[in-house]
Amino acid sequence: MLYPNKIKKNTLKQVTYSNRGMDLENLINETNEYYLEKDQALIYKKPTPIGISEATYTDHGRIIKNGYFKAPSTLDYNGIYKGKYIEFEAKETQSKTSFPLANFHEHQLKYLRRVLNHGGICFIIIKINTLTYLLKGEDVIWFLDHETRKSFPYSYIKEKGFFIKDGYNPPLDYLKIVDEVYLERI
Amino acid sequence: MLYPNKIKKNTLKQVTYSNRGMDLENLINETNEYYLEKDQALIYKKPTPIGISEATYTDHGRIIKNGYFKAPSTLDYNGIYKGKYIEFEAKETQSKTSFPLANFHEHQLKYLRRVLNHGGICFIIIKINTLTYLLKGEDVIWFLDHETRKSFPYSYIKEKGFFIKDGYNPPLDYLKIVDEVYLERI
Repeated sequence: MLYPNKIKKNTLKQVTYSNRGMDLENLINETNEYYLEKDQALIYKKPTPIGISEATYTDHGRIIKNGYFKAPSTLDYNGIYKGKYIEFEAKETQSKTSFPLANFHEHQLKYLRRVLNHGGICFIIIKINTLTYLLKGEDVIWFLDHETRKSFPYSYIKEKGFFIKDGYNPPLDYLKIVDEVYLERI
Repeated sequence: MLYPNKIKKNTLKQVTYSNRGMDLENLINETNEYYLEKDQALIYKKPTPIGISEATYTDHGRIIKNGYFKAPSTLDYNGIYKGKYIEFEAKETQSKTSFPLANFHEHQLKYLRRVLNHGGICFIIIKINTLTYLLKGEDVIWFLDHETRKSFPYSYIKEKGFFIKDGYNPPLDYLKIVDEVYLERI
């Protein structure tokens, strides 16, 4: 795909042939593209909100000359799956023993609670020790409300979370877990 | 609210005290803020997707020095209301007799169809002749599939659409129409 400046989009896909080198965000983006192609779900990463201090007009349209990133107040991904509203956030940590809550903005954790209250499916995807887990929003909230620790112990993630297996295509089939955890238990 | 460069955010709110001067997008954004405050719904405008060709690091974090706007492939607003997935687009026209379909990207119209197929509530909000209407996605699709015209005649909008009354707070209470059209008829 060619962009206005004729620079090819730099994707990790071009240089890595296994999931090993791909970060969590890329794995999920590829998985979402797979779901979109198969018409299984419509789930997108929300663009990072941008503030624009300076813009100019060129032959290619409006161009940003000075912009900055704003802190997100909602979770990164949302969409629709089997008629249900889904929203989630995905984060990875280098720590092997716990997952620091500082990986999330405070606004995001408040927002997670609101999505649950409105009847949405809401969770976080956490990668720790090279393993990926889905942790239900309800279990995130329980921890925030009952614990004073500033990080999820790995034991809590293993106990409450649901392991998401790496795959080839899609690379991270988290909707399989959503089926099991949310939809088949109703 | 102060942004990194200490320029106050320029909002229409500061200069207009009636809806008359506000464009449709601002009316809807203010309405969504009202819904958010009242915890009635969680509905956001998606940030316009940006491509970044050049970025630099400063004391304030990463700054965009060269960026461009990408064409949206989904609709502008989405969120959750009473447990339902909602997605819509809002556009106004200066024409008094018809609403040109060219106001929407072709990708967006295809996407509208997909959201409906996945069981979401999907519509467009159209402002024509200073009046605002909600047109159900199903009626947009019907028109695309049965008509060759490149614009909705005003008569079609009046016949199929649902009039949204201007208000003070919220300025455009479109969820009242969503209640009537989608939720109370079940």
